[in-house]
Amino acid sequence: MGSGGFTSRHLAVVGLGLMGGSIALALRGCAEIITGVDPDGETRKYALDNKIVDTATDDLKVGVADADAVILCAPVQMIVSMLTRRIGSYLRSNTLLIDIGSTKQDICAAMADLPIGVQAVGGHPMTGREVNGIQASLPTLYQGRPFVLCPTRRTTPATRLRALSLVDALDAIPFEMDAHRHDRLVAAISHLPYLLSSALVATVAKEGEVDPTIWELAAGGFRDMSRLAGQDVQMMGDILSTNTQAVATLLALFRVQLAMLEAMLVSRDDQQVADFLKPAREARINWIQKYENGHKK
Amino acid sequence: MGSGGFTSRHLAVVGLGLMGGSIALALRGCAEIITGVDPDGETRKYALDNKIVDTATDDLKVGVADADAVILCAPVQMIVSMLTRRIGSYLRSNTLLIDIGSTKQDICAAMADLPIGVQAVGGHPMTGREVNGIQASLPTLYQGRPFVLCPTRRTTPATRLRALSLVDALDAIPFEMDAHRHDRLVAAISHLPYLLSSALVATVAKEGEVDPTIWELAAGGFRDMSRLAGQDVQMMGDILSTNTQAVATLLALFRVQLAMLEAMLVSRDDQQVADFLKPAREARINWIQKYENGHKK
Repeated sequence: MGSGGFTSRHLAVVGLGLMGGSIALALRGCAEIITGVDPDGETRKYALDNKIVDTATDDLKVGVADADAVILCAPVQMIVSMLTRRIGSYLRSNTLLIDIGSTKQDICAAMADLPIGVQAVGGHPMTGREVNGIQASLPTLYQGRPFVLCPTRRTTPATRLRALSLVDALDAIPFEMDAHRHDRLVAAISHLPYLLSSALVATVAKEGEVDPTIWELAAGGFRDMSRLAGQDVQMMGDILSTNTQAVATLLALFRVQLAMLEAMLVSRDDQQVADFLKPAREARINWIQKYENGHKK
Repeated sequence: MGSGGFTSRHLAVVGLGLMGGSIALALRGCAEIITGVDPDGETRKYALDNKIVDTATDDLKVGVADADAVILCAPVQMIVSMLTRRIGSYLRSNTLLIDIGSTKQDICAAMADLPIGVQAVGGHPMTGREVNGIQASLPTLYQGRPFVLCPTRRTTPATRLRALSLVDALDAIPFEMDAHRHDRLVAAISHLPYLLSSALVATVAKEGEVDPTIWELAAGGFRDMSRLAGQDVQMMGDILSTNTQAVATLLALFRVQLAMLEAMLVSRDDQQVADFLKPAREARINWIQKYENGHKK
């Protein structure tokens, strides 16, 4: 899992879902002890039985008390709640605290208010699977994938280097940027696409109320464009509610593009339509070539 | 390739791309002679060398003169042009004329004006591949896929039955509806998704002008949502220009859905947001289960 110098005497993974389980698997060789923290008894049992973690508890305080590195693998609002309510006082001095939440401004703001001595940095690995839960964990989940690191007021130069070595140990590709920039970028490439997918399905469903045959004719194009709409609503609602401003900005920018395209279509200006569609096609083709040959190994 | 009773003494396939080549392969056992019509010499040679067709020509008149069944496998505008300019006078009486164009109103209107005696019906098989061209042809391309048939003023009851037997011979699933209804349905499930995909890529490209890192962070969600934007611009422009009204209607309906969702997000009404996203998620999940178990074999 990479040759980075990350080591931990005692690593705590808080939240044993797909992401947390995969981190534990990937960092097996770097940590002397791995403790899993999860409220669900069956999840903890699965993690122990499969040697994903060495010890497990449902008590956050107990789970992180001895750790020298803590990774918060929970939904955004829950991470914020852990940061603002309890965790700072549970940690030993100089413990590295990192998270994997999908939006970073709220989390990094909460990290900035942690007690001095906590070494906190925001993280967001751009990876996932169609399936969730610890049973779906893979030691290779982060391999070759971008892992964004967002500095906070609690990110010392040493914290930054240790976080970079952790990303390296996951065999992921680090991208360092401030939380605001991160949230704007993911609004464009992740949250906007989700909203479009959901609004498309809602539109087709409206049509389907009048003419249900629509569902029988829908094919591959609709399949791809509707996939994101099938994502977990609570998880996505959590993400969207912590990135409202950037999402609203991107929706406005999208509307401009769509309105331009519609005006060209309605005025039957085939050349203008082609001049809009061609660069989009080229951008997609250029990207997919890099994406499939590049960081997605 | 199905047990339908379709037979042809002489079948002409006009346009030897992926769709035409695949039809010829699928109907091999049903036709005594298959003639391919294509302007491209290399395509004709490939079709002959691989026994996809028995004879080939670049002359439409020559190619269809003796046929008792003709399938037009070309872009929509080209099909309309063949129908309005020449083909009616080339055909023998009682020849079945069918097409596979992606929009049906312009084509069916042109079919209605063919000489009496031509048996014409509009067709649209909902299938395709990522790759195009005769080299990508598959005898199974139509298997288990919807094949819409749209009646015209030249569709006699006998025409209809022969077209249905042709669809059956392709092992496809027939859906009969008028051209207007077809075009509205495909506007929703095919043309709207394409426009959303292109406008999304255009939006991300705008962001990328300011912050090119966006392309390195984009992942699986963006990959799916941008795939359609990579389609052939000329083909899609052709399709859109023959379905402007339905596309504009669907864009308007989509805008309403997206605006509702945005208003809920901006007012931070998490419950309303969830109430919008949940039915969309359920509709997608219900559909994909039917789609993957059903007509897509």
